[in-house]
Amino acid sequence: MSEMVKPRTLSGFMELLPGDQILFEKIKETLEQTYRSFGFLPLDTPVLEHSEILLAKAGGETEKQIYRFEKGDTDLTMRFDLTVPLAKYVAMNANDLAFPFKRYQIGKVYRGERAQKGRFREFYQADIDIIGDGKLDIRNDAEIPGIINTALTALGIDDFVIRINNRKVLNGLFQAFGIGDKAQDVLRTVDKIDKIGNEKVVEGLVELGVEEKKAASLMELLCAGESTEETLSRLKEYEGENETLKEGLFELEEVLRGMELFGVPKERFEADLTIARGLDYYTGTVYETTIKKHPEIGSVCSGGRYDNLAEFYTSRRLPGVGMSIGLTRLFYILQAQEYLNKGLAGAADALILPMTGEMSEAISLSADLRNRGIDAQVYFEDRKFKHKIAYADKLGIPFCVFLGEDEIRENKISLKKLSTGEQVTVDREEAVRLILEEKDLRKAAKTVIMK
Amino acid sequence: MSEMVKPRTLSGFMELLPGDQILFEKIKETLEQTYRSFGFLPLDTPVLEHSEILLAKAGGETEKQIYRFEKGDTDLTMRFDLTVPLAKYVAMNANDLAFPFKRYQIGKVYRGERAQKGRFREFYQADIDIIGDGKLDIRNDAEIPGIINTALTALGIDDFVIRINNRKVLNGLFQAFGIGDKAQDVLRTVDKIDKIGNEKVVEGLVELGVEEKKAASLMELLCAGESTEETLSRLKEYEGENETLKEGLFELEEVLRGMELFGVPKERFEADLTIARGLDYYTGTVYETTIKKHPEIGSVCSGGRYDNLAEFYTSRRLPGVGMSIGLTRLFYILQAQEYLNKGLAGAADALILPMTGEMSEAISLSADLRNRGIDAQVYFEDRKFKHKIAYADKLGIPFCVFLGEDEIRENKISLKKLSTGEQVTVDREEAVRLILEEKDLRKAAKTVIMK
Repeated sequence: MSEMVKPRTLSGFMELLPGDQILFEKIKETLEQTYRSFGFLPLDTPVLEHSEILLAKAGGETEKQIYRFEKGDTDLTMRFDLTVPLAKYVAMNANDLAFPFKRYQIGKVYRGERAQKGRFREFYQADIDIIGDGKLDIRNDAEIPGIINTALTALGIDDFVIRINNRKVLNGLFQAFGIGDKAQDVLRTVDKIDKIGNEKVVEGLVELGVEEKKAASLMELLCAGESTEETLSRLKEYEGENETLKEGLFELEEVLRGMELFGVPKERFEADLTIARGLDYYTGTVYETTIKKHPEIGSVCSGGRYDNLAEFYTSRRLPGVGMSIGLTRLFYILQAQEYLNKGLAGAADALILPMTGEMSEAISLSADLRNRGIDAQVYFEDRKFKHKIAYADKLGIPFCVFLGEDEIRENKISLKKLSTGEQVTVDREEAVRLILEEKDLRKAAKTVIMK
Repeated sequence: MSEMVKPRTLSGFMELLPGDQILFEKIKETLEQTYRSFGFLPLDTPVLEHSEILLAKAGGETEKQIYRFEKGDTDLTMRFDLTVPLAKYVAMNANDLAFPFKRYQIGKVYRGERAQKGRFREFYQADIDIIGDGKLDIRNDAEIPGIINTALTALGIDDFVIRINNRKVLNGLFQAFGIGDKAQDVLRTVDKIDKIGNEKVVEGLVELGVEEKKAASLMELLCAGESTEETLSRLKEYEGENETLKEGLFELEEVLRGMELFGVPKERFEADLTIARGLDYYTGTVYETTIKKHPEIGSVCSGGRYDNLAEFYTSRRLPGVGMSIGLTRLFYILQAQEYLNKGLAGAADALILPMTGEMSEAISLSADLRNRGIDAQVYFEDRKFKHKIAYADKLGIPFCVFLGEDEIRENKISLKKLSTGEQVTVDREEAVRLILEEKDLRKAAKTVIMK
């Protein structure tokens, strides 16, 4: 026997206990079902890719944060997002895909960042994107947040607002303010507004060489909108300034109008000109999603429109639009805030406790229950009665089924509901009805309850 | 713009086109649902672990095949199976788990093997295991193949046989034949029988120093059973020889009897004394599963009983039993043999084609259909009619919904069934009924059809 090794999991890698894992799976399923209900196709790309592929575009910051290594002659990297693999996939398979290509992917990505509370090195992203061939209708930019609204609502998260902006609006405004030549730098500075505040942004703009007065009045304009209507009406004043602004404003209005059509309630979305998204990748619509009660956690779901998904792999022009939920981080927050509905974390619907040495009746009952849609397990171990009940309790199984000689002879079932302690002896049909009734209640309940 | 990189995926890494990916997801879901219906808990462990943890037990062969690298000061390895991470997890969390701990895990594992057709470097395993605390009832050894039978049947795979043996039976027989001191080597030689045949195994045994006559009569005994009954009755003759054999025979009979209780049809399982399983890890029951029509592909689902899951991480004795489906390989075979039910690979239930510039009616119809359980997408792009129909066709969407001015005015829907070309104009209720009828048919169909 070799020496023992202390069992441990890498820091920054989420590993859940069973009850929480059940809830995580439920969240994943709800997202999948929602994405599919809008006709999105599943995609599953490898965790490992040629480094040359994943880093075709990447800058120095990405390089530092990645897991990259060699095996034999091959230079390998673990994927750090799901967008670059999507670009590769679409470029490779463009002739076999139907466009617009709507795909979702929920998968783990890897970043070798410094581990800290709430920061993960391995984490799930849940992405949806729509890729066009050559062009892509602006209404897709409204559908994407429409889907996110449906998904979050289905989870039980309702206290959120999707904030929407358009890069063309920003670039048009920068031009109108005569700072169009510094657009990228100005954008990156504006993007910090949530972190450093309005005044520091103005200081930053002045450092970039923008006149203080201009910087202040630009920031005043970006922050002014108290409501979407107000923001739009302020923007209208600049509409004639240039084509970029005009186009951006048209797109922004189309997206906002479309979101209403997609059933997103008014209070869950707004135009917000301070949303910039750091990445130079986006070219039109940009989104961020904030939980109103928890602005401190930042955006839980972000994305936008890009002109050219796969420019590093193909000359085919593939514009797209998408959003990504940082699922592991979102789960971490829901868990920490105790927003998870623990009542749904049951391992099964019923635990069958055979009260005789012979198990055949219990096993055949379990098969029958499963055929009727009940998740049922038999407890085989030779343990004290108390231990068996504690087992069901620990696993959150709502019902124990006792099958003793009396029950078998009389063709009855004794059913104990653990939450109330109530016990009844009934025929099989009635037992099935009671168990399914409880199951339906849990099915209808949401995984997240934001008190 | 930087230079272009040819988009490509690493060899030995499966990446599917959308239609096949839908079917892969369906298979994964069927397995998950089956595992859950027996009360199994989901588990999701990291892809990366400390090398020290994953390699606590491993021999040289494993070391050569793994993806191992350093990041900062940390020596990391990508998991090569789901059993070692399970052992770590149970050892770490033993005090928080309820035993017997029944868990399933469907996840990717990594082996840096030489890539060849049908061999994968990244592949899914779908594992179920039951871990006991100190001891574990033998009936669990019958439940595991019972679950596999339920799962494969639910998929539509019915042409299989689960072959069962017991290590104690083999070790007892080796003792009875006076070659108990060479048990491990004999076992490994016998394990090759499917690959090299009976005669070569006898030669191998002779090389190990077993008398030729003894070797031949041992092999004759192991291969003799034409049926489970015959195998058992031949074994009975040796029952008195030693305790190991007696215990093994008792367990084997219990498992076979239990499988009948779990509803596994007689023709789908058999006692087979030639099943040895190479790993020295197993201590009792061992299983292999062969597709009858395709013996050449070997076992699609294997496993067994082990005495001590986590001996490298804890002094707590944790016996267990489990089976693992090599899911990627199984899918590859089903795909290559054209056993997949392509009719189920639809992206959605209905594609809505707005025939007017205004999309609001189409979008609100799509939301209504989704609320009624129909996966519906709207086609937004400005393309030729023919192109739109081809899109639905390529995505396997069974119905197109036309919404023109007439339909909107009359509150009707024109519905075209693509498989027949039939088109009707009906009210919304009737359209929903027709779409759901078709959906139910597809829901009831199996993902695999073995012609």
